[in-house]
Formats: sequence, structure tokens, C-alpha cells
Amino acid sequence: MELSKRQETIIEIVKKNGPITGEQIAEKLNLTRATLRPDLAILTMAGLLDARPRVGYFYSGKSTDRVLAEKITGIKVGDVKSVPIVVPESCTVYDAVVTMFIEDVGTLYVVREGGLLEGVVSRKDLLKTTLGGHDINKLPVGVIMTRMPNVHFALENDSVWLAAYKLLTHEVDSLPVVKPVPEVNEKQFEVVGRLSKTNVTRIFVELGEGS
Amino acid sequence: MELSKRQETIIEIVKKNGPITGEQIAEKLNLTRATLRPDLAILTMAGLLDARPRVGYFYSGKSTDRVLAEKITGIKVGDVKSVPIVVPESCTVYDAVVTMFIEDVGTLYVVREGGLLEGVVSRKDLLKTTLGGHDINKLPVGVIMTRMPNVHFALENDSVWLAAYKLLTHEVDSLPVVKPVPEVNEKQFEVVGRLSKTNVTRIFVELGEGS
Repeated sequence: MELSKRQETIIEIVKKNGPITGEQIAEKLNLTRATLRPDLAILTMAGLLDARPRVGYFYSGKSTDRVLAEKITGIKVGDVKSVPIVVPESCTVYDAVVTMFIEDVGTLYVVREGGLLEGVVSRKDLLKTTLGGHDINKLPVGVIMTRMPNVHFALENDSVWLAAYKLLTHEVDSLPVVKPVPEVNEKQFEVVGRLSKTNVTRIFVELGEGS
Repeated sequence: MELSKRQETIIEIVKKNGPITGEQIAEKLNLTRATLRPDLAILTMAGLLDARPRVGYFYSGKSTDRVLAEKITGIKVGDVKSVPIVVPESCTVYDAVVTMFIEDVGTLYVVREGGLLEGVVSRKDLLKTTLGGHDINKLPVGVIMTRMPNVHFALENDSVWLAAYKLLTHEVDSLPVVKPVPEVNEKQFEVVGRLSKTNVTRIFVELGEGS
């Protein structure tokens, strides 16, 4: 949406002086209220200005970028999550690698009974271990995994935006999606999904397709 | 942006009959051209209708989703690409793994003199090899890499959207960003960057921050 010079001036006036009536804006511009009416209507319809009866116009702070941002932050982890691939803590490093290849994932979640999250093991962890001269047929993943409470995770109701932000800042490829189980333990979480950079990339591609 | 009932009716009329003049729309609604002027101005400003002098109004087909899609497809690979990490074909698998850890990347690009792309080796390729009982201190990456012309790549002027689409459909974590070198060979490409799911995730996070 492109604004005319006069519309941009109106936004500047409202930003500085809002709430301000249409009459007062017209005065500042040496124009009549009638002349301004279409501009004010357009700016209000576009969501750039808000109007309150008997108060006046004020700046809503919204822009096209803001609208896009709202769309992006509105997508929930629970709506796009993938199926988690889990192994027990006793699983050997060798079997973990095989599982990773069979399931074609980059991260395995290590769980105990009830699907409760114990830790996370990544392709990078496994590669480091296979290089380390260990007997990977005997070494259990429990020894090399990142263990709770040091695991970064996402809740189903979190925004994908927040999850993506965590993926970047913690430099991990995926987050386990978990559900608190207060009836078991305050610090325990059940693994119910997986949210990876692949999920984010898929959303990016879908948003770019429009609709 | 919320439309009034009359504005929605106008869009329907233009969708069905466009290009159509303001007079003709007014006639269909039993209103005067003057009454419609603000509505038509709003719809045109918002990018929902396009107006062409002496032709009339027609439907632009744009919506918030469309605007978002245009924004996304407008981002170029060249503007967001990362630094490529390259090794020669003679590099051993062991040294490749070490390079991957030192540089903290998921994919290495194998090049010959002049930075010309020969192949690609991923964390997954290396993990498979370390498990295979090879002497990784002697085995060169050239033996295990995916070799040109089977490598998927991106050009600097491609949209990130297209690159993300390739990452998904070819199930790879990154694409080498390349430049044709017609003066050397029609089928040769110089590696000038790296475009991964991490880059896409970063753009997603930035779009979600608005501005």
C-alpha cells in the first residue's frame, strides 16, 4: 500500500499529537475537514490510524511489516510439528546412528517410560563420538547425550517464531515439542513432537506461495 | 484491514466485470460516482483494485497473503548467503570432519583450483562413512562426496524462496551458492556462498520481528 504525501503528513501529525480530532488535523494542514475525509478513511481502513468517537485519531503503530509479523507469530508449534523419533537411554551409539538413518532425522530424543524426555542426541554428537575411538557397539547414548535440564524445547502452544528464535540462538537443528506432566513431576515433560529448521523452511515456502 | 459491506460488494463487481469504470460501478449500485469515490480510493490505495486511466478498475488479486508472498519471494540469495567452507578433493574424511567441527557447518563444498565446485559432502555422508569401517585417515572426501552434475545449487540472483524450495524437495541441509564462469567452461561454477536452512530460519525470525 503506497501512501500519498498528504497521508504521510497526516500520520506524522497524529503520531506527534494523537489523540487528535479531524478538525484539528485539518486546521494544521490549512484544509477543510471535508477534504481530509477520504484520507482519514483510507488510513483508518488500512489500520494505520485508529479512531475513537469523541476522542479523535491516534496512531496504531501498524505497518505492512507489522501485519506480516503478526501473521508469522500467529503460527503455533502444535499445528506444524513433526513426529518425534525416540530411543531409550540404553540404546547404543551404533543403534542410534542406524535409527537416525532409517528414520532420516537429524536429532533423536532420549526418553524413559511414559515418553518422558531425558535428553537429546544430534548428528553432530554422534559424529564426534564415532571419531573418538569409542566402542560404539557398547557405548549407550545416555553417556553422550545433552541431558535435561540442559535441553531446549518448545511447547505446543508456543509460536513457531519463538521456536525458530530458540533454534538460532541455541544453535540446534531441532527442538523436542513437549507437554508438561504435573501429575508425574513438575520438572518432567512428555515428548509429543519435533520442530526443526526443516519445519520452519517448509512454512517459509508455503507463505511464499501466497494463497 | 477490514472492508465495509459496500467495499466488498464493489470488489465482487470488479472481479466479475472488470475492467469497469467508476460510473458503471455506481450505476450497478444505484449510487452516484461521488458517493463511491472514497471507497474506490480506499480499495485502490490498499492494492485490492488497480485503476487504469480511460480503461477502468480491475481486480489486482492481492491480499495480505499475497503481499507476504511477494515480500518473501523478493529476498535474494546473494543478500543473505553465508561464507562457504571449502576443502580440496584430496582432503581426508578425518580432516573433513575436523574442518566441519572447527567451522561449525553442516556441509562442506569440495572445490578444485579457482574455487570451482566439484562436489558436496554432508554431516550425514561423513557419519555413514565413519561407521563403514573405512580408514578415514586415508580415505579422500572425493570418494564419498556427491559429485557434479548431481549437486543442487543456487545462484546469487535466485530468490531465497526458490532455494528453500530446493532444500525441501531435494532433502539437503544447504546449497552451494555459485557463479557461472563461462570463460572457463559452460558446465563449471565457482562457489561464492552457502545457503542453508539456518539462513531461511533467520529470515523467518526477522520477518516475524516486523520493523
